[in-house]
Amino acid sequence: MSQLADADDGVPLGEGAAGRMDQGMTIYGAIEAGGTKFVCALGTAETGSLRTATIPTRDPESTFAEVAAFFDGAAELGRVAGIGIASFGPVGVDAAAADYGKILATPKPGWEGTDLLARVRDFLDVPLAIDTDVNAAALAEVAAAGPEISQLAYVTVGTGIGVGLVTDGRAVHGIGHPEAGHVLVRRHPAHEGFAGTCPFHGDCLEGLAAGPAIAAAWGAPASELPAAHPFWDVEADYLAQLCMTLFLTMAPQRIVLGGGVMQQRRLLPIIRVRTAQMLGGYVQGARDLAAMERRILPPACREPSGLVGAYLLAKRAAQAEG
Amino acid sequence: MSQLADADDGVPLGEGAAGRMDQGMTIYGAIEAGGTKFVCALGTAETGSLRTATIPTRDPESTFAEVAAFFDGAAELGRVAGIGIASFGPVGVDAAAADYGKILATPKPGWEGTDLLARVRDFLDVPLAIDTDVNAAALAEVAAAGPEISQLAYVTVGTGIGVGLVTDGRAVHGIGHPEAGHVLVRRHPAHEGFAGTCPFHGDCLEGLAAGPAIAAAWGAPASELPAAHPFWDVEADYLAQLCMTLFLTMAPQRIVLGGGVMQQRRLLPIIRVRTAQMLGGYVQGARDLAAMERRILPPACREPSGLVGAYLLAKRAAQAEG
Repeated sequence: MSQLADADDGVPLGEGAAGRMDQGMTIYGAIEAGGTKFVCALGTAETGSLRTATIPTRDPESTFAEVAAFFDGAAELGRVAGIGIASFGPVGVDAAAADYGKILATPKPGWEGTDLLARVRDFLDVPLAIDTDVNAAALAEVAAAGPEISQLAYVTVGTGIGVGLVTDGRAVHGIGHPEAGHVLVRRHPAHEGFAGTCPFHGDCLEGLAAGPAIAAAWGAPASELPAAHPFWDVEADYLAQLCMTLFLTMAPQRIVLGGGVMQQRRLLPIIRVRTAQMLGGYVQGARDLAAMERRILPPACREPSGLVGAYLLAKRAAQAEG
Repeated sequence: MSQLADADDGVPLGEGAAGRMDQGMTIYGAIEAGGTKFVCALGTAETGSLRTATIPTRDPESTFAEVAAFFDGAAELGRVAGIGIASFGPVGVDAAAADYGKILATPKPGWEGTDLLARVRDFLDVPLAIDTDVNAAALAEVAAAGPEISQLAYVTVGTGIGVGLVTDGRAVHGIGHPEAGHVLVRRHPAHEGFAGTCPFHGDCLEGLAAGPAIAAAWGAPASELPAAHPFWDVEADYLAQLCMTLFLTMAPQRIVLGGGVMQQRRLLPIIRVRTAQMLGGYVQGARDLAAMERRILPPACREPSGLVGAYLLAKRAAQAEG
């Protein structure tokens, strides 16, 4: 649809189109596919979004009808050279596997088995790529960090806890994608007796420290809890355990902590102190609080990291096929 | 020295030497540098070792004098195209950094700051490469596993607990190398009151489950504990927590469990069961016991995996410089 609309706007497509577009700005599509909303955007990682739309996540059919309408309506901005999808998980991320681009076992009604790539291909025939929202965010944060950083973990603490990992500049895939939000943590003494909210593991990290767990344990979201509340130390302790685990396994040069809960700025300094205490000076390059202040950071991207990562995925897909 | 001896054996070196060697068998040197012994070998990863020697680890000077003597004495086997070192840690593994090849902060007297690469270069001027013993072992196990496996964790449980990680066929380096033997685990109820033996973290995984911790907690090494002893469940529980953490972070296709403690074959089946229980079916590709039996395995290399990995490092170094 978009390409037809392009033509209507007086930019005839054909063999020469790509060449002409290269003289102007190459734009990409980005879709941050979340459990509660889809954010669609056109632009590039470097320059930012020219246009965005936020679509509530309903069933796949009606959600993608709105996604298609966005890209159709935005065709006047130029030809889209590729689309990247930063998706909620679990999702197939192995481009060589049969489930690539498909939503896997999810409690979200109607979405299991949905082929996100096919849904996009239905309305726009351009190079496509997909990864988890957090892996995409990690790619975006690596790009924002500059050439010194090629090893990075992106953590989002919100309705769930998601972790994206990049090594040598590439997102980590193995049997599926990282799911480090579900690591086991040691219970904080001030949190005894709370069963945890994870349907799979009960009191794994996500079951103790994500938004729903905070509300269940303390009766209010983080944003409404006073500074003197025990919540802050409990939450920081759990997230510091995650940081410790990440430093000890992937040895990331940087850990970026994002998501709704992390918007409470009180948390980050406590997490840094606790991580340094727990590591006990053992890890070269993460020995003390000064190192933690360099290595554990809020997101650096000006737009949401997942969306920026989707642009990067789109660009890679276009370059790989170009 | 070795190259001189080569010449004495009637294989004159010079511009044409490499070409002639390619017609026969290319051999590599491997050094598995451990805290208690150095294993030196000549051969290849594929064909195995033609000759090996085990040298007790004393001070660097006398240890490397014996290493040099081994390579000198083995010169009759052919020209050595490169040497790989699989070293105890912490050791500098970033080839672009000033501390590459140097032993970092270690409690081992006399070894801190020792430049392993320079020590080898003193007696043999060939391409060199170094990584941790466990990263080298992980590379060797990836090679032994065949082309389906490119994402692997190698765990050794012995005097310490070491973890090597490979993603996309490459060893993981970040700020240093992985140190996942020191992750925090939840205390097993049958192990209450044991303080742990890690000088940095007390009751981290290594402090609870490595050889010295086993001896301290139960008064005997694993090999002497009876089948009905609570030790087996405690140990398996801790190592299953490590496997869970590795699946959730790196998502390895395979976890290889090696080292002295794992020679007690009773452990592996319990670890698989506990890992499956703890993951609760959450990780795609590691859902049940059948998956664990495919994914959590003993070493597949016929020689010690670290030594085989040292051959692979040597070959890569030779190819990179050749």
